[in-house]
Amino acid sequence: MTSSPHTGSIFGAVFARGGAAREVTDRAWLHAMVEFEAALAGVQARAGIIPDDAAQAIAGACQRPLDAAAATAGSSATGTPVAGVVAQLREYTGAPHAQYVHYGATSQDVMDSAAMLVTKRALVPIRADLADVADTCATLAEEHRDTVMAGRTLLQQAVTITFGLKAARWMSGVDTAIDRLDSLHHSALAVQYGGAAGTLCTLDDRGPEVTRALAERLRLATPELAWHSDRTRIADIAGALGIASGSCAKIATDIRLLAQTEVAEASEAPPAGDDSRAGTGGITRGGSTAMPHKRNPVAAVAAGACAQRTPALVATLLGSMAGEHERAAGAWHTEWETLSDLLRLTSSAASWLLESLRSLTVFPDRMLTNLAAPLRGGSLGSAGADVDRALRRHRGHG
Amino acid sequence: MTSSPHTGSIFGAVFARGGAAREVTDRAWLHAMVEFEAALAGVQARAGIIPDDAAQAIAGACQRPLDAAAATAGSSATGTPVAGVVAQLREYTGAPHAQYVHYGATSQDVMDSAAMLVTKRALVPIRADLADVADTCATLAEEHRDTVMAGRTLLQQAVTITFGLKAARWMSGVDTAIDRLDSLHHSALAVQYGGAAGTLCTLDDRGPEVTRALAERLRLATPELAWHSDRTRIADIAGALGIASGSCAKIATDIRLLAQTEVAEASEAPPAGDDSRAGTGGITRGGSTAMPHKRNPVAAVAAGACAQRTPALVATLLGSMAGEHERAAGAWHTEWETLSDLLRLTSSAASWLLESLRSLTVFPDRMLTNLAAPLRGGSLGSAGADVDRALRRHRGHG
Amino acid sequence: MTSSPHTGSIFGAVFARGGAAREVTDRAWLHAMVEFEAALAGVQARAGIIPDDAAQAIAGACQRPLDAAAATAGSSATGTPVAGVVAQLREYTGAPHAQYVHYGATSQDVMDSAAMLVTKRALVPIRADLADVADTCATLAEEHRDTVMAGRTLLQQAVTITFGLKAARWMSGVDTAIDRLDSLHHSALAVQYGGAAGTLCTLDDRGPEVTRALAERLRLATPELAWHSDRTRIADIAGALGIASGSCAKIATDIRLLAQTEVAEASEAPPAGDDSRAGTGGITRGGSTAMPHKRNPVAAVAAGACAQRTPALVATLLGSMAGEHERAAGAWHTEWETLSDLLRLTSSAASWLLESLRSLTVFPDRMLTNLAAPLRGGSLGSAGADVDRALRRHRGHG
Amino acid sequence: MTSSPHTGSIFGAVFARGGAAREVTDRAWLHAMVEFEAALAGVQARAGIIPDDAAQAIAGACQRPLDAAAATAGSSATGTPVAGVVAQLREYTGAPHAQYVHYGATSQDVMDSAAMLVTKRALVPIRADLADVADTCATLAEEHRDTVMAGRTLLQQAVTITFGLKAARWMSGVDTAIDRLDSLHHSALAVQYGGAAGTLCTLDDRGPEVTRALAERLRLATPELAWHSDRTRIADIAGALGIASGSCAKIATDIRLLAQTEVAEASEAPPAGDDSRAGTGGITRGGSTAMPHKRNPVAAVAAGACAQRTPALVATLLGSMAGEHERAAGAWHTEWETLSDLLRLTSSAASWLLESLRSLTVFPDRMLTNLAAPLRGGSLGSAGADVDRALRRHRGHG
Repeated sequence: MTSSPHTGSIFGAVFARGGAAREVTDRAWLHAMVEFEAALAGVQARAGIIPDDAAQAIAGACQRPLDAAAATAGSSATGTPVAGVVAQLREYTGAPHAQYVHYGATSQDVMDSAAMLVTKRALVPIRADLADVADTCATLAEEHRDTVMAGRTLLQQAVTITFGLKAARWMSGVDTAIDRLDSLHHSALAVQYGGAAGTLCTLDDRGPEVTRALAERLRLATPELAWHSDRTRIADIAGALGIASGSCAKIATDIRLLAQTEVAEASEAPPAGDDSRAGTGGITRGGSTAMPHKRNPVAAVAAGACAQRTPALVATLLGSMAGEHERAAGAWHTEWETLSDLLRLTSSAASWLLESLRSLTVFPDRMLTNLAAPLRGGSLGSAGADVDRALRRHRGHG
Repeated sequence: MTSSPHTGSIFGAVFARGGAAREVTDRAWLHAMVEFEAALAGVQARAGIIPDDAAQAIAGACQRPLDAAAATAGSSATGTPVAGVVAQLREYTGAPHAQYVHYGATSQDVMDSAAMLVTKRALVPIRADLADVADTCATLAEEHRDTVMAGRTLLQQAVTITFGLKAARWMSGVDTAIDRLDSLHHSALAVQYGGAAGTLCTLDDRGPEVTRALAERLRLATPELAWHSDRTRIADIAGALGIASGSCAKIATDIRLLAQTEVAEASEAPPAGDDSRAGTGGITRGGSTAMPHKRNPVAAVAAGACAQRTPALVATLLGSMAGEHERAAGAWHTEWETLSDLLRLTSSAASWLLESLRSLTVFPDRMLTNLAAPLRGGSLGSAGADVDRALRRHRGHG
Repeated sequence: MTSSPHTGSIFGAVFARGGAAREVTDRAWLHAMVEFEAALAGVQARAGIIPDDAAQAIAGACQRPLDAAAATAGSSATGTPVAGVVAQLREYTGAPHAQYVHYGATSQDVMDSAAMLVTKRALVPIRADLADVADTCATLAEEHRDTVMAGRTLLQQAVTITFGLKAARWMSGVDTAIDRLDSLHHSALAVQYGGAAGTLCTLDDRGPEVTRALAERLRLATPELAWHSDRTRIADIAGALGIASGSCAKIATDIRLLAQTEVAEASEAPPAGDDSRAGTGGITRGGSTAMPHKRNPVAAVAAGACAQRTPALVATLLGSMAGEHERAAGAWHTEWETLSDLLRLTSSAASWLLESLRSLTVFPDRMLTNLAAPLRGGSLGSAGADVDRALRRHRGHG
Repeated sequence: MTSSPHTGSIFGAVFARGGAAREVTDRAWLHAMVEFEAALAGVQARAGIIPDDAAQAIAGACQRPLDAAAATAGSSATGTPVAGVVAQLREYTGAPHAQYVHYGATSQDVMDSAAMLVTKRALVPIRADLADVADTCATLAEEHRDTVMAGRTLLQQAVTITFGLKAARWMSGVDTAIDRLDSLHHSALAVQYGGAAGTLCTLDDRGPEVTRALAERLRLATPELAWHSDRTRIADIAGALGIASGSCAKIATDIRLLAQTEVAEASEAPPAGDDSRAGTGGITRGGSTAMPHKRNPVAAVAAGACAQRTPALVATLLGSMAGEHERAAGAWHTEWETLSDLLRLTSSAASWLLESLRSLTVFPDRMLTNLAAPLRGGSLGSAGADVDRALRRHRGHG
């Protein structure tokens, strides 16, 4: 299970819990921006477009820690953090090579490529947590293949199912979400390098060749065309994250409902040991400041809260597709924090959900006694076969 | 170009213009619901689950026109139109076979399968219009491969590009959107048949076999599990439609900006002939009730207006993933009209955009004279090669 | 309780249930558009701007039924239904007065004023249903002032409350929502009359005087300025409707949860008599096609489904505020159906909720037996006083 | 003009520019939480509910700096930062008074009251910047009362207006937005104090009296009832902020369009002096890393980007109204960062817009030469009178 350091951030323990949080920090963005500039100089030197010495000087400059405040001050003047970062890299590089920093590039090249690097890295813990979620569901599905419980529709008991089937369906939704995320690597996560209006006009006809080499060096996909004004990639990433969040939200909803006092078919048990009480004034996980007898399904609540915030962010990213001409007047700016938040919240939803599932105590006896009379002894239909089939698919999945 | 009959609907000429509008009507939904019931009886008879005679009687009943008002009155009692439709089909089928109508099925089986049939059909004109949009862009890209114009970033002239490159990028975004839509057929567009809680408990262990046959008959994908409570499919469809709309919105934005009085580099010319004036009191397309001298880019305006409404609908569908237990208490209800609207609006955006592009007159001379002095004679960089490469990809695309 | 005829619309029984549905039909919009044109001619004649004879001829023309299909065909050419309507009114009016139809007006004057008339009328049943909801809650609050039940937080039993207090809080939220809706009449619901760019340039300096008279005749507020490009009014209406829907959603959520099989503290009893079964094939309200033993809280489910669709529509309307220059290139078009849907869904949420509350059977004994041991005999604190105070405020509210 | 310190935050210079940013920091939230606890102890001592000594000890503890990391560690266990803060305050307070910290309160009391304090403070710079925006528009309206320019509809020149009228309309929209924000103080910005389930059950019947005194001490409104489960207040705040953002977005759109190279009727001039270049590597405001000849309307672009992100956040807050029972299982958690972001972005939109307007150079000559032939000499209708009337209203407004 990945988890983020959320060093003292007041809401971070809830909303920056997943491992993606550390991949979308200021530091991570700056690192990705600098990485782009270093890689650009490297491939341009290899192509003979800039001197080897310049690339080496730039590589050295890119190793030095940026002064973030100074580096980002440029944003007030230009509306993006690129100018300040480039200025600082040029200062570090010094004459006569400074002119080759950011050669042929425009601000959006840096921001878009950095966004893709940040996204690619943030997807690692998201995928890992989702895979663990699916595996944990798989274990539950196996263990409870024959644990009979009420199937509920419109919040009414309907017919008999098994808890194993419920868990298998959770797993299946998450497996689908993972597939969608994996599909992003083929073309969505592409480098951006187009210069002022996407034509790399300072490179004459050598732009496409440099772009390809740059993509390889940064391990990103090579785009057909500069995509400053074609945001289908961002939209595709947004949609995939929306699906991932939603697949977590569904499970979190069920756990919260199963944990209701009157249902009590599952509970988030406190984590082993007492160390969770440190620094919380003796508050056990799931405890309440006002009501010590309660056992709140905190992880499922938090997972749901994280996920509930994501659909609107997806909408913002989709709405930003309609940018003006060769590079939009604001629409791509809206993507930076929105994409960061979407990655962070999806990751936190997955991380909380994993904690919820791992701490889940299931009460088969209660499931049985809760069964309304008309449901008792009802046919389980395809439940067992469904679980087996879904598990087979899941195992062949990773 | 597909277009819908929008018979007298006051806003339909704008927002129900695309061919999808006719695939999401009440009639289309009812047809899909009935089709599900007929197919279900058919495959159940073949599997020996219900009598052949029953399937034939049901097939006959399904040919008879439904009394929509009566059929849908059931919604007031049950919250879905299924009960009323089933009641009427049973009445048409008559004793002794009426009991086999909707055998083993639950309301959501019908609604979900109908939603998939409706979606699959609505995607046909959407895809066709998008393909025509991409082809029209391709033609523009070819014709204007060397038409020099200002590349504009943040709404300021930046460097020189070609109109061909702009058109090639439009095309490329739409080609990506088409790919995403095409990817839905593999697994997103799946049949639903699970019965009360997805276990097909009335069929003992024969559920999966019937589901598979049903999927084949309806030409939908076979789902791993009943997906009443796993809405990743709907979310995937929503995301793909959001991308499609957004790719249209981008182009429509550019056309509106190019058509500005002060820019005047493109214009939506009136359609050939005078027939567009019939019934409009002599108002030519793009004309204004108050200002006869204007030439409004009506099609691009309408395309943008259609597309601008879609991100929020995607968000609603993503938010509906968090449904309760085996079948949600309201979340899947929210999908019906939302999905219909999303299909209708995406289709209308594509259809309007196609009209805009087909009627587009491009003014290369004005493009040249608009070029700000610092841009004149600037390098076009990779513009020509980009266009050629994008066109090759496009041609290999269909 | 208001309710709409939803004549055969397949989803209308669920989503067009409230009285607002009939106020946002094509017919209602067309009626409002024609009403604007008649009133305009009337006040212009009184001001001596057009001949009295013209106003009378126009008034006569406005009485004649429009050919909706022909009237709206103009939309294909102009992107709005106004041109077609005006053309038809001119035809009905005939020479020599036809020229005075729509005098000095632009399409958006008609659409915006019609939107305000439509909204004002749609607010009547919305407010009435909300007031009935609040009254029904008040009755529940009174009757159950001392009915002890579990107070639940994070879906866990926490401390003891009364059902009366729960109902009083429901009421209070709805009362707040009503206040916000009522506040719209002061300035949000304003007439629009500005001509091509809001300056009424064809009326010389007499525009403001005509606008004021027109507002009075249509019983709308007089705007300070033409508001073609200032959509704060629409945004204010959207926000108020969002609050109204949300206040219904909250109650619907609670009812669905109380009605859970395992909680069973409340139930939507079937309406008296058997007439609800007519045309539904014998399906009682809340019944299920697959599970006759179930008692689904259909009205609360439907109320929630209606309300769940509204936040996204509010977002679309807020996003449409950023229109271009004197009249936007598409943003105001997005408002028409979106506003209609928002009114219709808010109204349907209120109407369903009212039905849910009116049919609600409360089970005080079950509330008592459900109480977890640690809660029994707990202090009720301010519960009784809270109920009394809230009821006093409610009674002074109407 | 307010502005935030955005100390090195990479996107903060763009999206945390307004003064609200510093009112929604972790520190500001923690401060508000502690302020609630101190005020609570104070009024409880005055009411004789807790000992005076305890209140003094607590007041002292509340002066000491919190260890934010430790204080917020509790979030991992409880899902809110309250437990950790309370534990630390109890430690600081020490025996025998520690037990009176947070007396009778629940976590949501603290978070909701803190949210209201944070919001109230964040509204101060938002309102101030909006008022300055409106005043700046008023000055433009006066100065350019007779500056003739093209009125543009659907991005086409339509009829003649004045730039003064355009500015007056901008002003009018912002004045409306200010009124809506001001209306929040009457009842939306209310204290929360209800205890576990809103009944203040530990205070017997003295809850309402303490709540009232607490509200007075914190200068918040006294709610009719505890509003843990009635989120109409949050929704009202959200709507008002959405309107405020939207009123800024509209103006920013117009400025971006006027500043287009081909229109050139307005420009964001660089701020006086050269100090803006400090730390940006010599990049002047509005300059571009790739194209030194450009003059980007950076402030209007940034204002638009901030505002574009707000409608989705409003939707998230509206969607959170449907919480479960007495305190929701996640919905109120979604409000914290969302409300902070909404305040921050609205404030930044206003702050950027103010900068844009203050730096705006208007080019009346270009406005005149841009006028299309058919518009020249056209009547200005009510333009002058409209400006005068709007200015009178504005001056009586503050």
